[in-house]
Amino acid sequence: MHGAILYLLLGQSVPLGFFPGGAEKELEAERLLLSIPSAEGFGAHLLYLTEEPHPAGSKRNMELADYVRERFLEYGLEDVHFHDTPALYSYGREASVDILEPVELSLKLKEDRNPEDKDSYRYSNSGVVPYHEYAASGEVEAQVVYANGGSPEDFAKLREMGVDLRGKIVLMRYSNPYSYRGYKVHLAETSGASAAIIYSDPADDGYARGETYPQGPWGPPSHIQWGSIVYDWLGYGTIPFTFHWKQNPDGSWVEGPERDRQLPRIPSIPMSHEDASEILSRLAGPAVPREWQGALPFTYHVGPGPVTVRLRVKNEDQIGLMRNVIGKIEGSEEPEKWIVVGNHRDAWSHGAVDPSSGTAALLETARALGAAVKQGFRPRRTIVFANWDAEEDLLGGSTSWAVELREKLRRDGVLYVNLDSAASGPNFSGSATPALADYLRDVSRYVPHPSAPTFYDAWRSKTPASEPEVGTIVGATDYTAFQENIGMSVIDLSSNGPYGVYHSQYDNYFWMSRIADPGFLQNAALSRFLAVLLYRSANVELLPMRYSAYARAILAHLDEVEKKAAPAREIHLTSARDAARRWEQKALALEARMWERELSREGAARFNALLMEVERALTEDRGLKSRPFFKHLIYAPQPTYRDEVLPRIWEAIDAGAWEEIEGYERELVTAFEKAGSLLDEAAAVLDTL
Amino acid sequence: MHGAILYLLLGQSVPLGFFPGGAEKELEAERLLLSIPSAEGFGAHLLYLTEEPHPAGSKRNMELADYVRERFLEYGLEDVHFHDTPALYSYGREASVDILEPVELSLKLKEDRNPEDKDSYRYSNSGVVPYHEYAASGEVEAQVVYANGGSPEDFAKLREMGVDLRGKIVLMRYSNPYSYRGYKVHLAETSGASAAIIYSDPADDGYARGETYPQGPWGPPSHIQWGSIVYDWLGYGTIPFTFHWKQNPDGSWVEGPERDRQLPRIPSIPMSHEDASEILSRLAGPAVPREWQGALPFTYHVGPGPVTVRLRVKNEDQIGLMRNVIGKIEGSEEPEKWIVVGNHRDAWSHGAVDPSSGTAALLETARALGAAVKQGFRPRRTIVFANWDAEEDLLGGSTSWAVELREKLRRDGVLYVNLDSAASGPNFSGSATPALADYLRDVSRYVPHPSAPTFYDAWRSKTPASEPEVGTIVGATDYTAFQENIGMSVIDLSSNGPYGVYHSQYDNYFWMSRIADPGFLQNAALSRFLAVLLYRSANVELLPMRYSAYARAILAHLDEVEKKAAPAREIHLTSARDAARRWEQKALALEARMWERELSREGAARFNALLMEVERALTEDRGLKSRPFFKHLIYAPQPTYRDEVLPRIWEAIDAGAWEEIEGYERELVTAFEKAGSLLDEAAAVLDTL
Repeated sequence: MHGAILYLLLGQSVPLGFFPGGAEKELEAERLLLSIPSAEGFGAHLLYLTEEPHPAGSKRNMELADYVRERFLEYGLEDVHFHDTPALYSYGREASVDILEPVELSLKLKEDRNPEDKDSYRYSNSGVVPYHEYAASGEVEAQVVYANGGSPEDFAKLREMGVDLRGKIVLMRYSNPYSYRGYKVHLAETSGASAAIIYSDPADDGYARGETYPQGPWGPPSHIQWGSIVYDWLGYGTIPFTFHWKQNPDGSWVEGPERDRQLPRIPSIPMSHEDASEILSRLAGPAVPREWQGALPFTYHVGPGPVTVRLRVKNEDQIGLMRNVIGKIEGSEEPEKWIVVGNHRDAWSHGAVDPSSGTAALLETARALGAAVKQGFRPRRTIVFANWDAEEDLLGGSTSWAVELREKLRRDGVLYVNLDSAASGPNFSGSATPALADYLRDVSRYVPHPSAPTFYDAWRSKTPASEPEVGTIVGATDYTAFQENIGMSVIDLSSNGPYGVYHSQYDNYFWMSRIADPGFLQNAALSRFLAVLLYRSANVELLPMRYSAYARAILAHLDEVEKKAAPAREIHLTSARDAARRWEQKALALEARMWERELSREGAARFNALLMEVERALTEDRGLKSRPFFKHLIYAPQPTYRDEVLPRIWEAIDAGAWEEIEGYERELVTAFEKAGSLLDEAAAVLDTL
Repeated sequence: MHGAILYLLLGQSVPLGFFPGGAEKELEAERLLLSIPSAEGFGAHLLYLTEEPHPAGSKRNMELADYVRERFLEYGLEDVHFHDTPALYSYGREASVDILEPVELSLKLKEDRNPEDKDSYRYSNSGVVPYHEYAASGEVEAQVVYANGGSPEDFAKLREMGVDLRGKIVLMRYSNPYSYRGYKVHLAETSGASAAIIYSDPADDGYARGETYPQGPWGPPSHIQWGSIVYDWLGYGTIPFTFHWKQNPDGSWVEGPERDRQLPRIPSIPMSHEDASEILSRLAGPAVPREWQGALPFTYHVGPGPVTVRLRVKNEDQIGLMRNVIGKIEGSEEPEKWIVVGNHRDAWSHGAVDPSSGTAALLETARALGAAVKQGFRPRRTIVFANWDAEEDLLGGSTSWAVELREKLRRDGVLYVNLDSAASGPNFSGSATPALADYLRDVSRYVPHPSAPTFYDAWRSKTPASEPEVGTIVGATDYTAFQENIGMSVIDLSSNGPYGVYHSQYDNYFWMSRIADPGFLQNAALSRFLAVLLYRSANVELLPMRYSAYARAILAHLDEVEKKAAPAREIHLTSARDAARRWEQKALALEARMWERELSREGAARFNALLMEVERALTEDRGLKSRPFFKHLIYAPQPTYRDEVLPRIWEAIDAGAWEEIEGYERELVTAFEKAGSLLDEAAAVLDTL
């Protein structure tokens, strides 16, 4: 009788990844792990981490690196060290926006103070101005055009309406529809605009969504979303991150003659809706298409003008350090095999959600795992803790580390677990490489949730499907290098709620402790989830990848790109589809029998190495034509950071390069056949026992 | 060879309804008809009709009846006469709304003046107050609760939230989601509320939609939507329309002891968003569910309170006359067969769109048809022109006329063509009994459109489907009695655009002539369409009903009600579906051969009578359990005026009366079999030739 079934008959469940024999000890360790991360512990970390603003390169962020390092040491982590790399930073020094026509009016460019909240006084320091990192410095006097969300479709619409953007200042919303802010500015720049403004419309994150700070979680009228606008897709993953700056023999840095093309050439500034409405309410020209209308109390118009604005930005570029803090729990049996977990530390302001909740959760998790080791529960594989730097600026810390360790990670990287914040609310959201979706769901059954028996229950209650929906790993966060460049399996965790203060000074301790997660129940629970996930992943006997699910996801993606092509041309990716189906069949056969009998330690190691290799088989070395850093065949973010699947074919469709598709399809067939033959080898390992 | 095909080979098309031989003369007449209705003629009618407000029962509306009668006579219509019936009207005499807490503030309850627009001074007469017709008079002082669109789902949500409405004033939006205003007030009343307010949110018809009056077509901050709130579904079609008022032998009317249950028992008032925001912005309690948020610049809250309001309404009930104006163009060959066309005359205010554009179009059409008759083109069947009264109050004029002539119409009523306004913009919208969908599309190919070669092209460009989408005949307008009680085939025409001034004083000549239809191009074109449609319908050799399309529509409706039932119980309407399919097959067979050979005059008359009978077969005499006036088996409006299909089964599902469904299905089977055997008889007519 199948051991797992026997175990179930006894009224217990066997966690995915274990034979019944190993499950008991695992669950004992996990019970211990669940008892350690606490709301008090989390809150103490959060309070310290959010005491002051701490952008990358700031003195405070270096102090916080010391704090993280000291905690890692205190909790018993091994090989604790800094990983330092130079990078170009850009800081806002001066900014002003004055309306010159049809009225004279200087905009505030400040977030309001709330006497109850000591962290809302940031702008009392007159040196603090809102800014878009890497925006060009300059002064522009021009009429304004409203361009909705600044997405490619929005700019296309403006062209269709005959609106000439040359020399204009383009005013855009942050989130309608979602598009990376840097890509908005890029589109404005390449349309000939002289400057950009991006504001937070109350329809997207303000009063139209619900109660606003300090009564509720949404953004108050003066809140401003800071952010980087680096044109990263033009040179993604370029190492070093110092761009056109060169180091002198004496160690000093000087700016090279030509500004790197990843850096905007026009000024840009973020803005509150309180300020933006002074401009927007005075625009004339045609009324906007209906979906461009936001929640400000007037009909929006496209312009240009009659509003004329003088916008002045002075950003200062300088080279600084990116300081990752690294620590490990060495594995007992396969120390060379790594489970990496990371969250960034740098924040635009106080960053209670983004990212300090993640750092605090990481520390609570480290505390739990360190304690477990002391009590004799050392995991089989090594867990590497990483506290990244400069995520906000350019995903710099994680990328530089991953690229530096590329060969090691391709050989031994089992899994990268990412956080980019822990909990801003009670709605758990888990994303994973498709092969790990079932595993992530399974882990979620073992962790209690504050508002449902388990994370699984809470998660399922938020999705219309009968099973919790596992998200896709595509976006702009620290997992990018791990999936896209290394080809590692990835899991990403977060717990979400209404969150309208993103990248503003109101994302702070007051907001988190009074509004979003009073008592830190959600964040403490997420720390527990993370502890169990890491320990279990470092301990599984056979890796829990189910590649049949990956193949099925790919079959759906093949449909997607065929549909994407359809308006222009009918394409039929039949041979890729057939290859994916053959791979799926092999995976299903393997998954049906891999738990039948326990393997020897050597057999399991060989089996696991083959499963790891399958994800690597879904990469190829050349990388995307437009972005060689992106070597994954199945997923990539678009420059807007929207999802892109089967990116080579996707981009060929966009470029109308129909003749390339056949070659890309062959590349997929080869990859799926490689993946299938790796599973054949794994099956052979089972047979030899 | 099929005559029609021969005709096509000659490069001409044969209008649906004619043999090639008859087509030529028809098209000659239609060319003449197309040349007559003019923008100037339309504009002159509209100017006169909109000179003053003219609600039903007002002196001005009686003067307009004279105007219509005189034009009918002038244009050569026959048997021109008034059709008078007494009805209960209710007029607003006094109204005030004062906020008592947390501030003291008296609301304006007036629409703003615009010096450019002489028709915007209505409220300069202090006797004019906005009102909901038939609302109870009374004074209420209570806290306010916001109930979104006041739909059944919204009240259910409030119950779920634990909000007690007893004694409260319920503030509701007009259009989110759409629900008949009278049903909103009814739900408030039956929830124990003491009064109702319904306001126009700018998200629905104001600045969030686009430019507002006087710059554009949407509603300005002070605009108020007047309207009737009669609980008509509680006694639909009750004749007389005097409710509990009784006539003395001397002819005077007195109110009976008990207020009719179709009349609300609580006060209610319509309101601008300018006024409503004074209340809404001060409500506390939980923030609203996201879809309840409108476009006013603050987070909406449910209440109750702390806003306390004193609302005072004094409406005066009195019996007045409903005066329909009727005129005819007598048919040359089948004078007993009637094509009826109607549009109402009464307006809440000046009513440029609703309804005067329709009356003006009807007059231009009458002028064209009268002129055609004088030039020798008298149609085969009789065209009856009707200018209804009291549509706004209780669909009174059309209903009383139809019910009075019920036997005549059931025997001889070929088609009812409805207008409820002509054009508020360029987007043509045609609705029809499913059997007439193809016919309506076909007619639209023959009429030029101002912004596309033909109405067909303009219509198709606005629908995602490859063919223009023909709407369903369900709603609250003058066609109700004709379809629901008589069982006549119906066509409804309108041409639409952004229209945010519905039922306000701004629906006036200024708005129409400057903003919505400058030059009256759209309205003149619609008059031409109507002229062609009426003449052709009165002249077709074989009636153009295609019952195969009706059967297919019913098959889709069977799916709909099965799906509606599904959450509670699985039902399978297999025998109804089979019967509908058999009917469809018979219809398809008939439609394939009916144009093969011309019929004798007598044969055609017999054939046509049978086709007319099919629509009648889709009614039964008992009527709906809840509303016996509704005798149609396929369509009915819900009390909210949303669509209801297969209404007997629909309402049994709602009531959980599962045991009734089998009987209703048998009733459908019988009807479809009757419909099929009528087609058999029609086929036999073809065979005897």
